[in-house]
Amino acid sequence: MKEIRIGLLGLGNIGTGTYKVLEMNRKEIEDTVGCPVNIVKILEKDIDRERDITVTRDMFVSDPEEIFSDPQIDIVIELLGGVEPAATLIERALRSGKHVVTANKAAVAANYSRLMDAAKENGVTLRFEASVGGGIPVLTALTGCLKANKFTRVLGIVNGTTNYILDRMTQEGLPYDEVLKDAQRLGFAEADPTADVEGIDAANKLSILMALMFDHYVHPKDIPTKGITEITAEDIKSAEADGCLIKLIAYAEIMEDGSIKYEVRPMRIINTHPLGGVHREYNAVFVEGNVVGNLMFYGPGAGPLPTGSAVMGDCMEIAKAMLAKGE
Amino acid sequence: MKEIRIGLLGLGNIGTGTYKVLEMNRKEIEDTVGCPVNIVKILEKDIDRERDITVTRDMFVSDPEEIFSDPQIDIVIELLGGVEPAATLIERALRSGKHVVTANKAAVAANYSRLMDAAKENGVTLRFEASVGGGIPVLTALTGCLKANKFTRVLGIVNGTTNYILDRMTQEGLPYDEVLKDAQRLGFAEADPTADVEGIDAANKLSILMALMFDHYVHPKDIPTKGITEITAEDIKSAEADGCLIKLIAYAEIMEDGSIKYEVRPMRIINTHPLGGVHREYNAVFVEGNVVGNLMFYGPGAGPLPTGSAVMGDCMEIAKAMLAKGE
Repeated sequence: MKEIRIGLLGLGNIGTGTYKVLEMNRKEIEDTVGCPVNIVKILEKDIDRERDITVTRDMFVSDPEEIFSDPQIDIVIELLGGVEPAATLIERALRSGKHVVTANKAAVAANYSRLMDAAKENGVTLRFEASVGGGIPVLTALTGCLKANKFTRVLGIVNGTTNYILDRMTQEGLPYDEVLKDAQRLGFAEADPTADVEGIDAANKLSILMALMFDHYVHPKDIPTKGITEITAEDIKSAEADGCLIKLIAYAEIMEDGSIKYEVRPMRIINTHPLGGVHREYNAVFVEGNVVGNLMFYGPGAGPLPTGSAVMGDCMEIAKAMLAKGE
Repeated sequence: MKEIRIGLLGLGNIGTGTYKVLEMNRKEIEDTVGCPVNIVKILEKDIDRERDITVTRDMFVSDPEEIFSDPQIDIVIELLGGVEPAATLIERALRSGKHVVTANKAAVAANYSRLMDAAKENGVTLRFEASVGGGIPVLTALTGCLKANKFTRVLGIVNGTTNYILDRMTQEGLPYDEVLKDAQRLGFAEADPTADVEGIDAANKLSILMALMFDHYVHPKDIPTKGITEITAEDIKSAEADGCLIKLIAYAEIMEDGSIKYEVRPMRIINTHPLGGVHREYNAVFVEGNVVGNLMFYGPGAGPLPTGSAVMGDCMEIAKAMLAKGE
C-alpha cells in the first residue's frame, strides 16, 4: 500500500502547527487522500524545544540533502520563512524531483518565475496556498474551480497586523502609536513591525495574486507601496463622516486598454462593502471575474493552525493527484 | 488528441448562461484543462427560442438516451431544475457511465444517498458546486483543500430572494409585502415565491452542506424550517436597536455530545459579523473548522453567468481528473 512521505523544513511555530494539524485530523486527511500520510524527516536545529507534538529525535536531520536525496520522500514542506535560504532550498527540492508546499510569501514573490520554471522542468508541483490569506483557500479556488473566468480585479486585506491596528484605531478612536504598542504586547505585531506596517508583506501577497490571476508577474519591489504609519485618528474620523473605513488594500485591476494597474496603499472602503466587515486581524480577498462577478474569501490570515490547515490542504491535493496518476 | 465532450440537459436561462461561459472564456477553460472542451448535444424542446449563443439545430435531441448512450460523451450537465424528472435523468446518466454536473439543489438534496451511490457504483463523479451559493466555490473548498479540518458549524445566507427582501426592509424601513412585490417586479422573486420565502430552498442547500461537511445526510423535509413571511418592519427595527440585522440563516452545528443541531430560520446577526456585510441578493456561507477557525465565502448566489461559472468549473475539475488518469 502506498504511503505519502513528507520531509519538513523548519519546526518553528508554523511547522509545529502543521504537524499538529496532521496529528489532530489524521483520519480525515488519510480518508480523503486514500492512504497513510506521514511527516518522516524534519530539518531543524532546535531539537530540544518544548513542543506539544509527538516527534522522535531520529526524525531530525541537520542537512537538507538528507531529505532531498531520500527516494522515499514525495513532498517537501518549506516553513523556514524569509527569502533565503528558503528559496534556494525550495528550488533544490524541486530539482530533486520533490513536490513542494510552502507558506513563504517572501520567497515565492521574489523568485516566482524561477521557482515555477523549476517545478515545470522537473514535472513536479509547487503549491503555496498558505502564502496569501493564511488559512483562506483563495489561491486554490482562483487557480482551480474558478478558472472558467477571466479575472479583472482584486482588492485584498492580506495583512492581519495592519488590519488589526486600523480596526482598533477606528473602533476606539486611538492614535496609531498607541495601538501599535498594544498590538506588539498582544502578539498581533512583531517587535520590528516594518514589513507589515510599511505594506511590504501585502506587496509580496499582491505579487503572488497578480501572477496567478492575471498571469502577470511583478516583483514586489516594483509594486507602488504605501503603508499605514502616517494614518491618523483624524483621517479615520474624516472617512467615517463619509460612511467609509480606512483599510490597507492590495489592489490590482485590468484596465480597459489591457494594462494592469496595481498598488498597495490605505484606501477608503464604503461601510456597506463586504470588505468593511473584515475586523481585527482577519484577512479577506475580494475578486472580480468576468462571468462569476464579485466574490470574497474571508478568514484567518495567519496563525499556526490556520496556516497548517492550508499547508496540509496543499499536501492532500498533491497526494490525490499522485495517487490518481498511479505514482 | 483528446476532446472533452459534454451533453447538456436543458437550455433555459441557466443552460444558456453555461453555454455562454464556455463561449466567452473558451481559451482559459481549454488551457486549464489541456484539451478542447465542447458541448455537443443538447436536450431541449424549445429549439427556436431566441438565445444570444451559437447553437446549431443538429445539436438538439429530444430523447435523453441519445446523450446517455453516446460513447463519445464524457460529461452530462443537468440544468432542468426541479426534483423530477431531473433526479431520474441524473441517475440514468451516472448508471450509463457518465460523469454528471448539476446546479439542481432540489434534486440532489431529495436524493442525495441514491445519487452518490449511483456515482460510486459506476466509478464516475457527481459534482454540484452551483447547487449551493451559485457562483461561490464553497463546496469544492469544503470537500477539497479544506478537508484537513473537522467542520463544526455552518451559518449560511443561501437564498438571494430572502436576503434581498430583508435587506431592503432594513435599509428602507418598508413592510414585507411591499418589498416582495417590488422584488417580483425587478426579477429578484418569482411569481410564486413560496420555495424562497418559506425557507424551502435554503433547507435544500443546508441538507447538501450538512452531507458534505458532517457526512450526515438529512432530507430537507426533516430540517426544521421557518421562512421570513412573518418578519415585520418592527422586528427589524427592534433588532437594529440592539445592533443586529435579521437574516434568513441555514444553520447547523456539531454539539458537544456529538449530536447535530440544524434549522433554517430568521436569526439576529450582530452588525459587525461578516454575515452582516452581505447585502441585496448576495449569498455567503460562514463555516468553522477545528483547525482553520472561521471562514466565509461570499458571492452571487444565482444568475446565469455566475451559475455557469460554477458548472463549467465542475466540468473542468472532472476533465482534469480524467486526463490525469489517462481516460
